[in-house]
Amino acid sequence: LPEHDIVVLDEDDFDRNRIRYVATWGPKPGSLSHLPALEAVFSLGAGVDHLMSYQGLPDVPIVRVSQDDLTHRMSEYVVLHCLMHLRDQRRFDAAQRAKHWDQDRAPPIASEVRVGVMGSGVLGQDAARKLKVMGFDVAAWSRSPKSSDGYEIFSAEEGLAAFLARTDILVSLLPLTPETRGILNRSLFGKLARDGRLGGPILINAGRGGLQVEEDIVACLDDGTLKAATLDVFQTEPLPQDSPLWTHPQVTVTPHNSAVSDAEMTARYIAGQIRRHEAGEPFQNVVDPRRGY
Amino acid sequence: LPEHDIVVLDEDDFDRNRIRYVATWGPKPGSLSHLPALEAVFSLGAGVDHLMSYQGLPDVPIVRVSQDDLTHRMSEYVVLHCLMHLRDQRRFDAAQRAKHWDQDRAPPIASEVRVGVMGSGVLGQDAARKLKVMGFDVAAWSRSPKSSDGYEIFSAEEGLAAFLARTDILVSLLPLTPETRGILNRSLFGKLARDGRLGGPILINAGRGGLQVEEDIVACLDDGTLKAATLDVFQTEPLPQDSPLWTHPQVTVTPHNSAVSDAEMTARYIAGQIRRHEAGEPFQNVVDPRRGY
Repeated sequence: LPEHDIVVLDEDDFDRNRIRYVATWGPKPGSLSHLPALEAVFSLGAGVDHLMSYQGLPDVPIVRVSQDDLTHRMSEYVVLHCLMHLRDQRRFDAAQRAKHWDQDRAPPIASEVRVGVMGSGVLGQDAARKLKVMGFDVAAWSRSPKSSDGYEIFSAEEGLAAFLARTDILVSLLPLTPETRGILNRSLFGKLARDGRLGGPILINAGRGGLQVEEDIVACLDDGTLKAATLDVFQTEPLPQDSPLWTHPQVTVTPHNSAVSDAEMTARYIAGQIRRHEAGEPFQNVVDPRRGY
Repeated sequence: LPEHDIVVLDEDDFDRNRIRYVATWGPKPGSLSHLPALEAVFSLGAGVDHLMSYQGLPDVPIVRVSQDDLTHRMSEYVVLHCLMHLRDQRRFDAAQRAKHWDQDRAPPIASEVRVGVMGSGVLGQDAARKLKVMGFDVAAWSRSPKSSDGYEIFSAEEGLAAFLARTDILVSLLPLTPETRGILNRSLFGKLARDGRLGGPILINAGRGGLQVEEDIVACLDDGTLKAATLDVFQTEPLPQDSPLWTHPQVTVTPHNSAVSDAEMTARYIAGQIRRHEAGEPFQNVVDPRRGY
């Protein structure tokens, strides 16, 4: 954007009256105040929960990053971990360590395993489509009714119980809002299918740590309500050293890297949105402040 | 097949003159002789190398099992292990064991990684198509020229070097024939791409153990010619306890379970082929004895 000056908020010395756009993740208190020329705020990631909790958010469009790159990375993560559970990779890892040629039970085939994707935005749709190509029996859950792309979409509170009852692997790609905070808890886990081929329901959370109640996850793994969990996000990040999740034999921990934003791609995306706006076109992926995403 | 009697060769007491079909994996020497009414031999798996090495194979059609189920299972395996290498899952497994929140380097995205599939039969085509859906930069190599489905197919001896030079992850789904025996050796590994995003070339062999020279794999991992290997098949199976592959830190061993034939599905397939034949239609997936697959 050679036609614009770029400054670092709260660091560089500059005239606040000239700031037209801000790109931020979690702004410090007060840092978005007194910007009279502000036209838009860009979130530096797909999620905007860090931004939405800012007190006194300016009344301008809040624009989310949505880039194919991020979507594809997230789907890689989701398909990888669904396949690891399907193919019982942790059992074969253990067999290798024991030099055991384990041909006891062949894993089921993907079509025999029901994956439920919570969240039907761009990320959820791409993941669901790719899981379906891999053969999984896929359904999705969405807050608002949506049209589907060859798989069933359950919606709203009414649809949730039926969705959970047909789900062997639950993939959470939900945004974090006051309504979804703590939704991945014992009550929800208890509604997942118990008649599946994997020996118990499995949780994959690649959405936000605030969606999950980690105490409930550990307790449900220990009492068999859950069979296994793959977690990329946590209530506190980095995951504290004393968290039992690190060493739990049924848990795979990844360091919030399911869909890392690429700095250059993000910059290109924001520059593209600014050019659209200045050419008189609307911003894309504008956050609805009532829904919070 | 209620219209047929079913007997166990070399065990049950029966009249050899009445045997019209044999279903077998690796027949004992002599067990296929003196069957004057024989119309076909069915292999109990997708591979026929165990059968082709039989001395004095009867001059009747040899029919391979080819079932969607087997194809889909193989593609699950291939996509799973390509994604594990892409996403550096072993590094994050080690980080978890060390309670290390490892955000040092984000893995590349699938489109930056070149997968080369050796073998362009039903299995290779399905795997290549699904790898492409996942975003990988896919090419295939085939003994005979083939038409492609949206990815480049190299063929014959002339195409092999160019194929290897653009391959970061080599997926072997070749049949075992006198021509392919030992093809996965130091000379071939040395021709793989060294300019890729994964820090060195990776081998995934889900074809046959006889394709690979295990001494070369270990030596090439140790001197950096290969970065990692995922092996489902071995020169001797079960893999002997003293094989260095079990404990090599860059090797994932699975117990020849990439595409386990389901007994019931195989039985249905063979019954279907017998019905086709008896209705005057040709068998499907007949082996070409000159090519050996």
